[in-house]
Amino acid sequence: MPDKLIQQQLLAARYGADQQPENIIWNTQIAGLIRHRSVRNFTDRPLPAGWLETLVAAAQSASTSSNLQQWSVVAVTEPSLKAQVRMLAAGDNGLANGYIEQAPAILLWIADLSRNHAITSADGLYPQVHDYLDTFLMSSVDAALAAQNATVAAESIGLGTVYIGAARNKAKELAELINLPERSYVVCGLLIGWPDDRHPGDIRPRLPQSVVAHHNRYQADDLDAQIDRYEAVFHAFREGLGMKDKTWKQAVQSAAVSLEYMDGRQNLRETLEKSGFGFK
Amino acid sequence: MPDKLIQQQLLAARYGADQQPENIIWNTQIAGLIRHRSVRNFTDRPLPAGWLETLVAAAQSASTSSNLQQWSVVAVTEPSLKAQVRMLAAGDNGLANGYIEQAPAILLWIADLSRNHAITSADGLYPQVHDYLDTFLMSSVDAALAAQNATVAAESIGLGTVYIGAARNKAKELAELINLPERSYVVCGLLIGWPDDRHPGDIRPRLPQSVVAHHNRYQADDLDAQIDRYEAVFHAFREGLGMKDKTWKQAVQSAAVSLEYMDGRQNLRETLEKSGFGFK
Repeated sequence: MPDKLIQQQLLAARYGADQQPENIIWNTQIAGLIRHRSVRNFTDRPLPAGWLETLVAAAQSASTSSNLQQWSVVAVTEPSLKAQVRMLAAGDNGLANGYIEQAPAILLWIADLSRNHAITSADGLYPQVHDYLDTFLMSSVDAALAAQNATVAAESIGLGTVYIGAARNKAKELAELINLPERSYVVCGLLIGWPDDRHPGDIRPRLPQSVVAHHNRYQADDLDAQIDRYEAVFHAFREGLGMKDKTWKQAVQSAAVSLEYMDGRQNLRETLEKSGFGFK
Repeated sequence: MPDKLIQQQLLAARYGADQQPENIIWNTQIAGLIRHRSVRNFTDRPLPAGWLETLVAAAQSASTSSNLQQWSVVAVTEPSLKAQVRMLAAGDNGLANGYIEQAPAILLWIADLSRNHAITSADGLYPQVHDYLDTFLMSSVDAALAAQNATVAAESIGLGTVYIGAARNKAKELAELINLPERSYVVCGLLIGWPDDRHPGDIRPRLPQSVVAHHNRYQADDLDAQIDRYEAVFHAFREGLGMKDKTWKQAVQSAAVSLEYMDGRQNLRETLEKSGFGFK
């Protein structure tokens, strides 16, 4: 297929046929980023030699605040341990059940203050900066930047990935399972494996750029009309997949009002405080 | 230069000559990720047409929790506004002073619950999920994943970037300056511009993979010896740049004990609570 046509198809999938941004600059990397889709079905083909070293090298090459490197990653590949991770993240719950265990690996991305806490307190100093919300945020963001670089690297060699935010549902039990030290926690999981081409997953449409991107100052005029345009694209996407009709607004509202959606994540602060994080 | 030699040089720069991981899988994208360096000196060459649309398309293509899309970005390009952003992030402080204003744009990445709060409360529903730490974290992580994709896209077309965590130093004042609505805040800034080849920046060495990456369970045995090996690499890096000697441990300790390092970020929680974020 000519490049121009592929570009149009990718942007149409990402934004809908009528909402595409113009003047997009193209190259292999940008096409790869825009083509991203979450993969939830994996084959049993083993991961290539060097996969973990490669993903970790990509992750470590991301920026990290003040070079403090306050993150770690635990790669869970043992089948029995992976099954326990699945139980903690998803219980016996539908799809998530299957796909966590089907993937050859789940990477657990850790916001990790334990190392620098040890380095500091070993010399009799008290790391008071760790008692603040900003430090919790800084280590969590650094873990996220690292995870995203690993995702980009994985996809560039043909692997599929999906983030598992539900890794926070039972944060305390998961930390115990993988022997996390105090002052560290799992920000999110990331499944890694070869996509099953029979169920490849789909590029999801996103809000129009005008909703999320602002010039010089934030402005939310005309939000309702723009969201209505997105609903049309969202509806067409779901219809194309034969999914039960649901508007994006309904999805947003149900995730905002229901503690069932949180599924244990409402206990995150209590768990983290017991583990030594501070939120001043 | 033959590819093999470039690979060895990149890994030696990232890990030191003796600590390189083996079996790294190479392609254009992975080389690009490993080659990352923060750029703090920019030329006055204008940004190419479509730069913002391209970076936003890459950012929106990153995963977002439950497709809730709880982030936004404000691109500050107006010189006078950029100067005010610099004052809030860096004051009159040395280097940061110059390089924020020299860059043609700073992208401010926003964790944004305001949109979904409005969508929910418009129908008389109360978004109680937004009152929890996990939701603050989820929107912040989604903003970080988006920012990192934009970084990768920018570097793939030859632009240079550097994250500005100091955008949180005066969070309240910055939010007012760019008209942020309640329930949104700037997670970090990202400068964008063409690198000045006279001061290209350097690939910074990171901790050995064995320190940050764990198999199945976290283990921190032998940490001191591994950090000592990193200190040697860190020392050689600083010496090569003619920088005043400082160990990594000293840098870690000073960032952990000194509220001066926080430079206002110790007020983040208070600012965010006033803006409507909850931390239950």
